[in-house]
Amino acid sequence: MQVCGKCKIRIEEGEFEKFGIESRASHAGAWQDSESASIGAEERLAGYRLGCVATVRSELLVFVPEASRAGKQVVSKAARQIQIDLDPAIKHYVIDVKEPTLEDSTADLERVLEALEKQHGLSALLCDIFALRSLPRALRAGDWQIIVSIWMDREIIRFRPGRQFTGYGLAIDIGTTTLAAYLCDLNTGKVLDTLSMMNPQVRYGEDVVSRITYHMGNPEGLARMSADLVDALNQMIEQALCGGEGLSSGDENPGPGGPARISREDILDVTIGCNTAMHHILLQLDPEPLGSIPFTPVVHHSLDVKARDLGLRVNASANVFFLPNTAGYVGGDNIGVILAEAPHLRDGIQLIIDIGTNGELVLGNRNQLICASCATGPALEGAQIEFGMRAAPGAIERVAIDPNTHEVDYKVIGRDAWRSYSAPEAMQTRGICGSGILDVLAQLFLAGIVGKNGAFTADARRSARFRKNPQTGIKEFVLAWANETIIAKDIVITQKDIRQIQLAKASIYTGCKLMMRRLNLSTVDRVKIAGAFGTHVDRGLALVMGMFPDAPLETVTCVGNAAGDGCRIVLLDRKKRLEADRICRSVTYIELTLEPDFQHQLIEATQLPHMTDAFPHLREASERCRFKKIE
Amino acid sequence: MQVCGKCKIRIEEGEFEKFGIESRASHAGAWQDSESASIGAEERLAGYRLGCVATVRSELLVFVPEASRAGKQVVSKAARQIQIDLDPAIKHYVIDVKEPTLEDSTADLERVLEALEKQHGLSALLCDIFALRSLPRALRAGDWQIIVSIWMDREIIRFRPGRQFTGYGLAIDIGTTTLAAYLCDLNTGKVLDTLSMMNPQVRYGEDVVSRITYHMGNPEGLARMSADLVDALNQMIEQALCGGEGLSSGDENPGPGGPARISREDILDVTIGCNTAMHHILLQLDPEPLGSIPFTPVVHHSLDVKARDLGLRVNASANVFFLPNTAGYVGGDNIGVILAEAPHLRDGIQLIIDIGTNGELVLGNRNQLICASCATGPALEGAQIEFGMRAAPGAIERVAIDPNTHEVDYKVIGRDAWRSYSAPEAMQTRGICGSGILDVLAQLFLAGIVGKNGAFTADARRSARFRKNPQTGIKEFVLAWANETIIAKDIVITQKDIRQIQLAKASIYTGCKLMMRRLNLSTVDRVKIAGAFGTHVDRGLALVMGMFPDAPLETVTCVGNAAGDGCRIVLLDRKKRLEADRICRSVTYIELTLEPDFQHQLIEATQLPHMTDAFPHLREASERCRFKKIE
Repeated sequence: MQVCGKCKIRIEEGEFEKFGIESRASHAGAWQDSESASIGAEERLAGYRLGCVATVRSELLVFVPEASRAGKQVVSKAARQIQIDLDPAIKHYVIDVKEPTLEDSTADLERVLEALEKQHGLSALLCDIFALRSLPRALRAGDWQIIVSIWMDREIIRFRPGRQFTGYGLAIDIGTTTLAAYLCDLNTGKVLDTLSMMNPQVRYGEDVVSRITYHMGNPEGLARMSADLVDALNQMIEQALCGGEGLSSGDENPGPGGPARISREDILDVTIGCNTAMHHILLQLDPEPLGSIPFTPVVHHSLDVKARDLGLRVNASANVFFLPNTAGYVGGDNIGVILAEAPHLRDGIQLIIDIGTNGELVLGNRNQLICASCATGPALEGAQIEFGMRAAPGAIERVAIDPNTHEVDYKVIGRDAWRSYSAPEAMQTRGICGSGILDVLAQLFLAGIVGKNGAFTADARRSARFRKNPQTGIKEFVLAWANETIIAKDIVITQKDIRQIQLAKASIYTGCKLMMRRLNLSTVDRVKIAGAFGTHVDRGLALVMGMFPDAPLETVTCVGNAAGDGCRIVLLDRKKRLEADRICRSVTYIELTLEPDFQHQLIEATQLPHMTDAFPHLREASERCRFKKIE
Repeated sequence: MQVCGKCKIRIEEGEFEKFGIESRASHAGAWQDSESASIGAEERLAGYRLGCVATVRSELLVFVPEASRAGKQVVSKAARQIQIDLDPAIKHYVIDVKEPTLEDSTADLERVLEALEKQHGLSALLCDIFALRSLPRALRAGDWQIIVSIWMDREIIRFRPGRQFTGYGLAIDIGTTTLAAYLCDLNTGKVLDTLSMMNPQVRYGEDVVSRITYHMGNPEGLARMSADLVDALNQMIEQALCGGEGLSSGDENPGPGGPARISREDILDVTIGCNTAMHHILLQLDPEPLGSIPFTPVVHHSLDVKARDLGLRVNASANVFFLPNTAGYVGGDNIGVILAEAPHLRDGIQLIIDIGTNGELVLGNRNQLICASCATGPALEGAQIEFGMRAAPGAIERVAIDPNTHEVDYKVIGRDAWRSYSAPEAMQTRGICGSGILDVLAQLFLAGIVGKNGAFTADARRSARFRKNPQTGIKEFVLAWANETIIAKDIVITQKDIRQIQLAKASIYTGCKLMMRRLNLSTVDRVKIAGAFGTHVDRGLALVMGMFPDAPLETVTCVGNAAGDGCRIVLLDRKKRLEADRICRSVTYIELTLEPDFQHQLIEATQLPHMTDAFPHLREASERCRFKKIE
């Protein structure tokens, strides 16, 4: 039997783990000859099988690698155009070196150091040992003229013959659920490519607490989670090298994207921003103390770690810069958001809401900045929602509901025409993703299908799309009929889903409100919504849903992946690395759950807001949003 | 068939290499079941076989690992008692850290840094990422009291709970032919153990030039030679951990020495001294330019390299300090000799002769120091001598020849009684090692068996011990009859051997003379003989042989492994690390082969010296040495 090999999966541990690999694999049936063409000896040992021929014989934990997942994720973490002063940590210097003679046979490195001092005024330089290995050849191949790449005017990390220099950097934003990487040209500052994929750690738990728990229960858990993340980052690096298509892991085998267009050796700098738990797990710093009071991180300040010590397959001498951690639940990604939105440099009060698996909030201006974290859960990213999915073709990304007929119109990723302008079978709908989830609750509310408490109304019960699920008994509302889908099932939003969304938005709203109370503010000058789908959020619907306190719509902006922007900023402007540590020291972290009244406020905030005069901007937003399709 | 597994060997490459491992192994016959008990799957892939069952089917290059060699080498690189100021690079600090609370949940590292500043006045510290991994657990296990180990008051490399601290260091002297390592207690400065073994690179060539040639002819040669040396160093580290007996490579399997007596994690510092070629090969720095004019090294100054970047299996955060290189053929081992003998701090003129595979010479005092290298070849270490062997039980280490009877008396390593006081069969002689080789030429000369030109005299021809080898036609002199040996063969010294020894001593003598000419000196205040067998050299016989210019015997001392002492000095006294770089910058390297008259001088020096009044001290030495057994 010939098979295509696209459904490679890896069998993870289970209760049978103690019987070893052979036994583990046999829980998915005997090895088939047809698997050998796609799965090499090494992968076979690692537990890889083909999903189409392996048979499940007992309970299994299976990992589906990125390459085997249906539908390539839509890059929702695209790089914004932001103003960055180009002053990278890596600088290149061309030098002419005097050739040694018998009379003066001073060593290569001492000659180079002398030339760097005389020709460029650089002194007290260190040289990475891996870089030093290429010096003798570079000098002789370049006829004693070479380019020296120096990190932070402190450490030589590369020697190359000649005069022409290229150098790239990667800014990586590690989210609990998704990863994004920006490949930048260090000479121009231009973003050459944007890569994104799922965080492979999701199989150890959707949120950071479950990953910390996994670590606590498994002696090898931390190393394993770290290694999985490093593997994923290396996959993104391969994609970057091959122009976004390659997925292979060796230079010899550049994968479907064809030969590598840039060399691994040319990636000279990496910056990483992530929440504190991801930071600790990636660096294999014990995250256990993050999981319990007083949520103490291992380290606040920024770190420089050799790429080779992390296992990142870029230039071995490259240093990886980690943005500093503010607190146990507010990490370097939040510092990145602050660097990108710069509330600390402005007079106006900004409220920045970074929506991810955890919500991170920043409030203040140049005089004072406070930050907090709220446990939104992964609902807003499509997880733990009955038909939730990530932003991939076929995912519902926009929803509009007619308040009179309760008819649903929607748009899916990968198709320009809305449902009402399409033949049903043309929609090929698969599920609902983050931005669709944000829309749907506001639209259900505006259409009168759910009430202020989030429960289906009496009105809803008259709708043809409302029903009680015969199996589960849970009430649900049909968004897409089976004939519009590729899964041949009605796509619904359930009462349980609505509760998840309510909890997520309530935690954000409560956080905003308690922070404003801390600073004695009743209004703010700007509200900024950041995050993976930050650019896709409908500001009006978010206000209607009650995700943040009432504000004039024109002061609300969506800023996209501001954390990723912050990673790019420190990649391209070394001065911002010091600024990042200064921000980290000056911003005050508020532990929301310890604020008086927190529980009460949270429960209050699960309600959908009233349309009263107390919320003038909300009323205006409601009017604008009512069954209006958003462009 | 049951086999003991003690004759493990590794089949190296040959012309059949291109056919792969399977084919390679088959040149030593089919795999035998009996081999599986001693050779695991990994070793089997690496080409290991048992010498007793594998059969040679075609030309093979075979590596005999240290553990498989007959006779444990006698540690001739034993540590001397030298005065060292105890001020190691690693210092330990006990601190009390404030436990975090919800009101103050500052990160672990920031707490530690604050305590180090307040309690010990240390600031601007870095922390190695591998060390940081152990911080959270150490703090909590130690109830917020920990010991911090800091390198050069600059970088934290270890956190441990509690108050009791231990820490060890390794000073490693890497010779072209032999390796020596001193395990030192960093708290007391005491040498706990001395380890030595052969440099595994000898299979790529006896001297540094042939290893450079191997690198030039093999794309993987440099990496392979480096890896072999790292493997050997790791074996010595295992021995150090297990008290000198363990040879296994994993913590799980501590080997015949029983469980490790000290932990790998407790080895916190390593210093290495070696010649420039060994330095470059170990660090994988291209040694090719060392092989041709103008013999330029890659780097002079000392280097600090992470142990993990070298692959040394000590504490992963440990730094390895490499002594600086003076020139292409005078390396860090020579700087070590200077540190140990301190000519740069004294008024008297010292001539230091470090005998190894290369001879390294230092001449001068506090006003001026010059150094040079002479290609002695490995003869003085027992290599390229017909019955040459390393210093192991059964090796002739002392020789005395009666000028009247031409009878030979000798002593072997491992037996106190000389031949003349023993039954022949009690000697169990195997060969002749370095110190025996140094003795034998002078004794042959003093007994009139060889003449001033090194040829056997007419007198010799009358000796029962003289003969022409029936196979090779080469003249030889019997040192030990077959019945005194364990190899059932007469042990002889051949005319060819004598030429090798003459060349070796001539190159040393010429070097000394040309250097003295450079400094306009006719005499020196002290002659010091250093090297692997430095403590075993008979000063009088060395003078008779003409190894160095005439000098009063009481000014000649043997200083043993001074290079290794230098490695210990920088291990235990960090101030000496700076001094090493200062010495390296101030000592002048002389390229002997470019000195006017070099060739002529060298040929002259192959002669054995005349007994004229021009050599008063030599005459005295000769009288003292004539058929006198040395204690």
